[in-house]
Amino acid sequence: MSMLPGTPCAEEPMYHEEPMYGTMRLFSGRANMPLAQRISEYLKVPLDEAEIFEFPNENIFVRLKKSVRAQDVFLIQPTCSPVNRSIMELLIMIDTLKRASAGRITAVIPYYGYGRTDKKDQPRVPITARLIADMITVAGANRVLTVDLHAGQIQGFFSIPVDEMTAMPLLVRYFREKGIANPVIVAPDVGATKRARNFAQALDAPLAVIEKRRVENRPTARVLNLIGRVRGKNAIIVDDEIDTGGSLAGAFEILRKRGAQEIYACATHGVFSPPAVERLSALGFAEIVVTDTVLIPPEKQMPHLKVLSVAPLLGEVIRRIHTGESVGAMALA
Amino acid sequence: MSMLPGTPCAEEPMYHEEPMYGTMRLFSGRANMPLAQRISEYLKVPLDEAEIFEFPNENIFVRLKKSVRAQDVFLIQPTCSPVNRSIMELLIMIDTLKRASAGRITAVIPYYGYGRTDKKDQPRVPITARLIADMITVAGANRVLTVDLHAGQIQGFFSIPVDEMTAMPLLVRYFREKGIANPVIVAPDVGATKRARNFAQALDAPLAVIEKRRVENRPTARVLNLIGRVRGKNAIIVDDEIDTGGSLAGAFEILRKRGAQEIYACATHGVFSPPAVERLSALGFAEIVVTDTVLIPPEKQMPHLKVLSVAPLLGEVIRRIHTGESVGAMALA
Amino acid sequence: MSMLPGTPCAEEPMYHEEPMYGTMRLFSGRANMPLAQRISEYLKVPLDEAEIFEFPNENIFVRLKKSVRAQDVFLIQPTCSPVNRSIMELLIMIDTLKRASAGRITAVIPYYGYGRTDKKDQPRVPITARLIADMITVAGANRVLTVDLHAGQIQGFFSIPVDEMTAMPLLVRYFREKGIANPVIVAPDVGATKRARNFAQALDAPLAVIEKRRVENRPTARVLNLIGRVRGKNAIIVDDEIDTGGSLAGAFEILRKRGAQEIYACATHGVFSPPAVERLSALGFAEIVVTDTVLIPPEKQMPHLKVLSVAPLLGEVIRRIHTGESVGAMALA
Amino acid sequence: MSMLPGTPCAEEPMYHEEPMYGTMRLFSGRANMPLAQRISEYLKVPLDEAEIFEFPNENIFVRLKKSVRAQDVFLIQPTCSPVNRSIMELLIMIDTLKRASAGRITAVIPYYGYGRTDKKDQPRVPITARLIADMITVAGANRVLTVDLHAGQIQGFFSIPVDEMTAMPLLVRYFREKGIANPVIVAPDVGATKRARNFAQALDAPLAVIEKRRVENRPTARVLNLIGRVRGKNAIIVDDEIDTGGSLAGAFEILRKRGAQEIYACATHGVFSPPAVERLSALGFAEIVVTDTVLIPPEKQMPHLKVLSVAPLLGEVIRRIHTGESVGAMALA
Amino acid sequence: MSMLPGTPCAEEPMYHEEPMYGTMRLFSGRANMPLAQRISEYLKVPLDEAEIFEFPNENIFVRLKKSVRAQDVFLIQPTCSPVNRSIMELLIMIDTLKRASAGRITAVIPYYGYGRTDKKDQPRVPITARLIADMITVAGANRVLTVDLHAGQIQGFFSIPVDEMTAMPLLVRYFREKGIANPVIVAPDVGATKRARNFAQALDAPLAVIEKRRVENRPTARVLNLIGRVRGKNAIIVDDEIDTGGSLAGAFEILRKRGAQEIYACATHGVFSPPAVERLSALGFAEIVVTDTVLIPPEKQMPHLKVLSVAPLLGEVIRRIHTGESVGAMALA
Amino acid sequence: MSMLPGTPCAEEPMYHEEPMYGTMRLFSGRANMPLAQRISEYLKVPLDEAEIFEFPNENIFVRLKKSVRAQDVFLIQPTCSPVNRSIMELLIMIDTLKRASAGRITAVIPYYGYGRTDKKDQPRVPITARLIADMITVAGANRVLTVDLHAGQIQGFFSIPVDEMTAMPLLVRYFREKGIANPVIVAPDVGATKRARNFAQALDAPLAVIEKRRVENRPTARVLNLIGRVRGKNAIIVDDEIDTGGSLAGAFEILRKRGAQEIYACATHGVFSPPAVERLSALGFAEIVVTDTVLIPPEKQMPHLKVLSVAPLLGEVIRRIHTGESVGAMALA
Repeated sequence: MSMLPGTPCAEEPMYHEEPMYGTMRLFSGRANMPLAQRISEYLKVPLDEAEIFEFPNENIFVRLKKSVRAQDVFLIQPTCSPVNRSIMELLIMIDTLKRASAGRITAVIPYYGYGRTDKKDQPRVPITARLIADMITVAGANRVLTVDLHAGQIQGFFSIPVDEMTAMPLLVRYFREKGIANPVIVAPDVGATKRARNFAQALDAPLAVIEKRRVENRPTARVLNLIGRVRGKNAIIVDDEIDTGGSLAGAFEILRKRGAQEIYACATHGVFSPPAVERLSALGFAEIVVTDTVLIPPEKQMPHLKVLSVAPLLGEVIRRIHTGESVGAMALA
Repeated sequence: MSMLPGTPCAEEPMYHEEPMYGTMRLFSGRANMPLAQRISEYLKVPLDEAEIFEFPNENIFVRLKKSVRAQDVFLIQPTCSPVNRSIMELLIMIDTLKRASAGRITAVIPYYGYGRTDKKDQPRVPITARLIADMITVAGANRVLTVDLHAGQIQGFFSIPVDEMTAMPLLVRYFREKGIANPVIVAPDVGATKRARNFAQALDAPLAVIEKRRVENRPTARVLNLIGRVRGKNAIIVDDEIDTGGSLAGAFEILRKRGAQEIYACATHGVFSPPAVERLSALGFAEIVVTDTVLIPPEKQMPHLKVLSVAPLLGEVIRRIHTGESVGAMALA
Repeated sequence: MSMLPGTPCAEEPMYHEEPMYGTMRLFSGRANMPLAQRISEYLKVPLDEAEIFEFPNENIFVRLKKSVRAQDVFLIQPTCSPVNRSIMELLIMIDTLKRASAGRITAVIPYYGYGRTDKKDQPRVPITARLIADMITVAGANRVLTVDLHAGQIQGFFSIPVDEMTAMPLLVRYFREKGIANPVIVAPDVGATKRARNFAQALDAPLAVIEKRRVENRPTARVLNLIGRVRGKNAIIVDDEIDTGGSLAGAFEILRKRGAQEIYACATHGVFSPPAVERLSALGFAEIVVTDTVLIPPEKQMPHLKVLSVAPLLGEVIRRIHTGESVGAMALA
Repeated sequence: MSMLPGTPCAEEPMYHEEPMYGTMRLFSGRANMPLAQRISEYLKVPLDEAEIFEFPNENIFVRLKKSVRAQDVFLIQPTCSPVNRSIMELLIMIDTLKRASAGRITAVIPYYGYGRTDKKDQPRVPITARLIADMITVAGANRVLTVDLHAGQIQGFFSIPVDEMTAMPLLVRYFREKGIANPVIVAPDVGATKRARNFAQALDAPLAVIEKRRVENRPTARVLNLIGRVRGKNAIIVDDEIDTGGSLAGAFEILRKRGAQEIYACATHGVFSPPAVERLSALGFAEIVVTDTVLIPPEKQMPHLKVLSVAPLLGEVIRRIHTGESVGAMALA
Repeated sequence: MSMLPGTPCAEEPMYHEEPMYGTMRLFSGRANMPLAQRISEYLKVPLDEAEIFEFPNENIFVRLKKSVRAQDVFLIQPTCSPVNRSIMELLIMIDTLKRASAGRITAVIPYYGYGRTDKKDQPRVPITARLIADMITVAGANRVLTVDLHAGQIQGFFSIPVDEMTAMPLLVRYFREKGIANPVIVAPDVGATKRARNFAQALDAPLAVIEKRRVENRPTARVLNLIGRVRGKNAIIVDDEIDTGGSLAGAFEILRKRGAQEIYACATHGVFSPPAVERLSALGFAEIVVTDTVLIPPEKQMPHLKVLSVAPLLGEVIRRIHTGESVGAMALA
Repeated sequence: MSMLPGTPCAEEPMYHEEPMYGTMRLFSGRANMPLAQRISEYLKVPLDEAEIFEFPNENIFVRLKKSVRAQDVFLIQPTCSPVNRSIMELLIMIDTLKRASAGRITAVIPYYGYGRTDKKDQPRVPITARLIADMITVAGANRVLTVDLHAGQIQGFFSIPVDEMTAMPLLVRYFREKGIANPVIVAPDVGATKRARNFAQALDAPLAVIEKRRVENRPTARVLNLIGRVRGKNAIIVDDEIDTGGSLAGAFEILRKRGAQEIYACATHGVFSPPAVERLSALGFAEIVVTDTVLIPPEKQMPHLKVLSVAPLLGEVIRRIHTGESVGAMALA
């Protein structure tokens, strides 16, 4: 039994010298090409060419330029604006890869659109985040790599393995290095409390929570409360994404009113749906910090907007998925 | 055993007095509301109200106003322009209906988008028509009702029952009643030959086929041949859909050159992608006849455009699906 | 066309005179027989007899006494203690019903065990709540009725329809009728903030949040902060379930320290795992209010424990599911 | 709450006045038309017409003459000789019915071919009985009705409900009425022991078992032992099916040698593969009794062959499945 | 990062030095052993031994002689005559391989039977080509390799990857090398027009189309038209398969009548169902050219029949699938 | 073509030098740690550490200490007492491994609990053995390794590959080496006849069968018959498992009464449910021989109990599954 494969188990490295799923191949849809380019640079693996275009009838068409047969394909496509096109494009590219006999298909979805439609909190509404998980699986993806889902439970919408990374340490490190004095971390609504608490803990700062309530008899009106103390402190509002900036604007005003000094905002995903840019530019944020999971086109650039890149994070995870090294180990780093 | 349910089998009607899947309910997505309205009028069943809108982040949201629990829902949504939005909306509405416990969900898709991406005729391309069939099924539709698929085989992309109706008899009847003298039916390319032959047979007219070929050394150039005789005849070009009008324009020119007299075109689906309207308006078609499976907005109206309605056809089929009467019997009528 | 089934749509009731899935049948596993009995009484439908027992080898065996063929079966089984047995028993009963040709199987799971294992918040852990959803579906349930899931997203772990009801209005009404003066609603940890906010809004009371943090270098130690004001107020701690009572005990102490007057606790699910009874009995809660979704055996009875019944709620929903009436309408009531 | 549907539960009949799955429809493949005809006569429901034929290229084609939309279809097709054609025909008919929108499809398979390939008892062999179960399910059957599977576990190869009936009481009753004196029931090999024991118990007769063993060094040779006493008794050999008659012939000889008087054989399924007829005709069986689950063409008729009909049994079960009455109750009768 | 697997991406070959799915293994069912033998010779890989036989009860049984565990198995079995047996045998062999833990199973189906039952072109008929695709997938095949499907859309009936090769270049090359003067390519019916056009384009020859029509009031009668010019030309009739030879015989006669000189026929699949041999032998075809996808037994040999082998094509594709080299690249060659 | 991978096929070994699914990893649930330890020792591969514990609310939690990404995991967990916990733990561990991206998951289930609930032998009972097979598959296992299933057909409950090994040769060898004179093999009930016959054949001993019958009018009473001769012989009772020992005790008594000399019992699985230990200890068995598939805790140790280890058998199979060597070859050894 001396030739037992298990024998050298003790000393052998936990990853494979030889990748198991063929050569690494990187593809990108059209949703966030610059991010894909940065990941490619990190990995020193070129982005593969694929023709992706729409016919005059709006049908998306995809044609891969080179064989992917039995290779280890990573397809980068956040499902950001144009959202429905990005989703369809993701699915069509997965179908193309599957039917072209890719060895393994990892859907790299740095921003998972429709993530906020993740439960029925009123009768007769959809759970679109689950629907899309099913669609990705049915199309043929073997695994998913994503960043800061709106709710961690969305992992459970998939039956295939999901590696969910978080950009929170990136943001924490940024603020830590900035050396903001006397900070308070603010959850812009009750749903963000847990994320803000984790952020507060990492920065060893106190927590405050903004709470929105309906005003009786006026269905769309909301009134804000601030729970916790912010006076004289520098506030950092923390959320998973900045969408229209409505919550952020409300938070800004109540924080100012309650005597906060400098006010920062940060989030993983800078969605910036209209009228976010106008709305946020008009306020006096010290800085708004997001990452590049979502493409921020020139017209969405704002003064005081800082964009950190998740490319090294995603690049490193892709490398580890490819070689079979531990990804969990990164979560602890 | 005299109370055997089977006993009265001989004389009893083949449909149910009492519908089996609950009350009929009609919903429509936003893709072709006027058609849905016409079907509703045919059926004398009101269209149900559903809130369908997009958040500023482009996420489609759906909320049904009334319970659909244990009822027999027909959801009308051709997957026409804006194509990707229409598909996502269809899927999200199906998910909503399923999670709201609809008794049965029939996806009524008068125009099935992406139908031309139905096979791999070159390496490394998708079969999007199958992908969408899977998505409709996974979302939760129990059955599909559609009209003139690009290829009949797309029925086989579904494992759920599909009722594919054809608008060809409607078009045949229209031309028959018009009483066109000395007609010839023209297939605008070889893929349309079978459809044109059936049309020709129904009108008892001869057939001609236009054949496109690549020109050697010039990858995008095509040359057209016309097989069959058209001189002195009135030509009716028959296809399943009119997209950019390119084939039709080519056909018009060669028919004119070969001496055809009046030139008509007809198709079930008037997609009219740009630059169809400009291109076709500039030519001397006697008439272009389509149906209302695809919404034709005012800016796509052309002189000599005739639109026939499939609403009575679809309405009648919906009625029969609901009551369990034979739909096949209509195909023979 | 005057006999169109749709014609009388306007005036006809939205539910069926004749139930569509056969006669209603009620079964219960052994997890919470008293609740099943109360539901049966509400519905005036007797509980069906089923032999359920364990062989000496611990294998659960089930035998239904009467035919369920083509009938509308509701199987009541919260997956509470003994948890693993309750889950297996639920699954085996569903398999039995499916193979006995039940017309429809609704798994009524008033308490959904393993609900807190709903995401991977660290590497290499399971998502058991999804696993169990898959198991229930594979076993053959057609739908699920449940109460106050730990996270609403668990609905999305199912592809079959889920009716999630909430006992919160029951608890709100109880405290409203009690007429507690000057109340403050307290979330015992940040994850419960949203639920507490909704409760606070319903009672028109302010909100406070307790925040737990790890102590550096001491992996298991936690320190508590209280955000918001409680001094001089009567506090009502709100959570979805009371498990070992650890959070509650911590909350009690910090509330007392910060000057709260009377301290109440309420939750939908009274799990009361050891040492909850000892721990909570030792403190001076004014009252602890839960419902009967989980069986509370005599040895878990405590002074100041108040148990409200969800039987009328579940009974009414079962009735509506059976007849096809709106369940969503109840959510709004 | 007086109009609760459950209220009349006590007195109401356990079956439906109104069938739930539409009108009963009976179809038959070509495998055993006479049995289908007898079932039809029992039910007083005519057999539906379907064109079933083979093209010159051997492809089976099916076309239903009348609509089956939303109706309760029973398709009768034992998978007996020609076995592979019968299986394909069954599957194609199920596909046809599914795509024609049948309300419910019950595959009535009185004899389940390939039932003896139900486990891997040596390396690298198939489990064809499971494969066929999957195929029937994938084709679209909603349920299965069958008779005396080779092993009861084959029920578990299906995830859809299976009603397995047994013809053993029919055979028992036949022999009981015959009044055979001093009987002994004989299992023709060890695999049949349980079935023979049940038969013996029903007739209150002793049991004997024939055991086959390989002869060392001669791979295909077998030697028979008889365990139990048969001298002076009238032996009834009991098995689930008679195939080539080899076991039966061996049993006959050893029984004769050990002094049995009259020798009978009975089985549910009279497969009679070559050379069964020659082999069995040559021996002195008092009677061979089978049922009509398998078609016995004229050339397989033998002297002393008695064929009992399962048509009343299957007819009655079909009636009960259709109306939702208890089938289990029959098993006890 | 210098040991990044992607680094050498630029210079490394796109296929694997080491096959990823274990050693290549070749198996064949009984449908076309000579073809399997030729593929084996091309690959210099011996055909594996498997016992495949029928028991007297017609049940097919399979036993593999050697382990296939974790190996890369190619199973060659066109579903040609005896069609239903060939299909069952294919499925049973796949099940055997799956349960014997083959590393990957590629079903090599050079001729895909039932391909013409690929859509519902009349009410209440099956789509058997989809049914069989589902069966192959359920049985456990991981991928399919096939040649010239009746319709390309049949690829989309599979969710697993399909490599569809075409033998058309083989046939084109044969005729090109023959150097036929003044050729015209003829589609024997409208459904074959596209295939004939591609053939015509490759040979730079004109196209003619034969069109069949029903004769009014005589349901089975057909009348033929020929569209295009053939007088004085040498005609090559092109189709995907030759079945009973009926279309070919009709085409021969009308071509002769219209003055064609030499008449050739070619097709990928030489099915030659009765009475093809008698019918075609009686006519004056210059040559009939097919490939060996379907076994042509001695009794089907005809004068003027030329059989080209697809073995080198399939052998080369199998080699590339095994090593992960591009198959698409062959399509372009 | 000289570099064809298949070329060296003749001389190359049938297994892989390099394992295909990554490094071998061994995990064990808590059901039978000593067996897992023995397998680990055989393989010289250490057992992996995993935290497995129950929260106070009885929820099982699992956390793997080290990455399993892309590795070849064997998870050892017989589903023995505590049965329901063992099953849940097995499933949760599989889910954990799947979501942690294990390369391949083999569920090693030396004892398959609920194996006797493998068919519906009365109306309205479950087929739990199939249910559990589905659950194991849905959880994410890729394959199963097990020992002596109660019925071989349970293999067919799985669609994933199952390697079922048998411990019978181990038991046979034990008794052969013991050199028992004049043996008779006894099936303790008719269902065990086949297993006993195989045992008898291997030991070249005669067979006897014990047959239980219901006593008329006394539903729970049973009377035993012994078929075959045992007087003056040494009896070895053979079964797949010893549960409560009831059958064994009955067999012991009738054997003694009929004059058997020494009485042995053997079975693969020593379940020993209460009151097995008391019951069997009280009788005069010469020896009771089982294996260690089921954990036998100290309190179940009995005089005359002999436990053989299946660890070398399972260890060797695991090694072969890992390297791709033939497992079937072992079955023949």
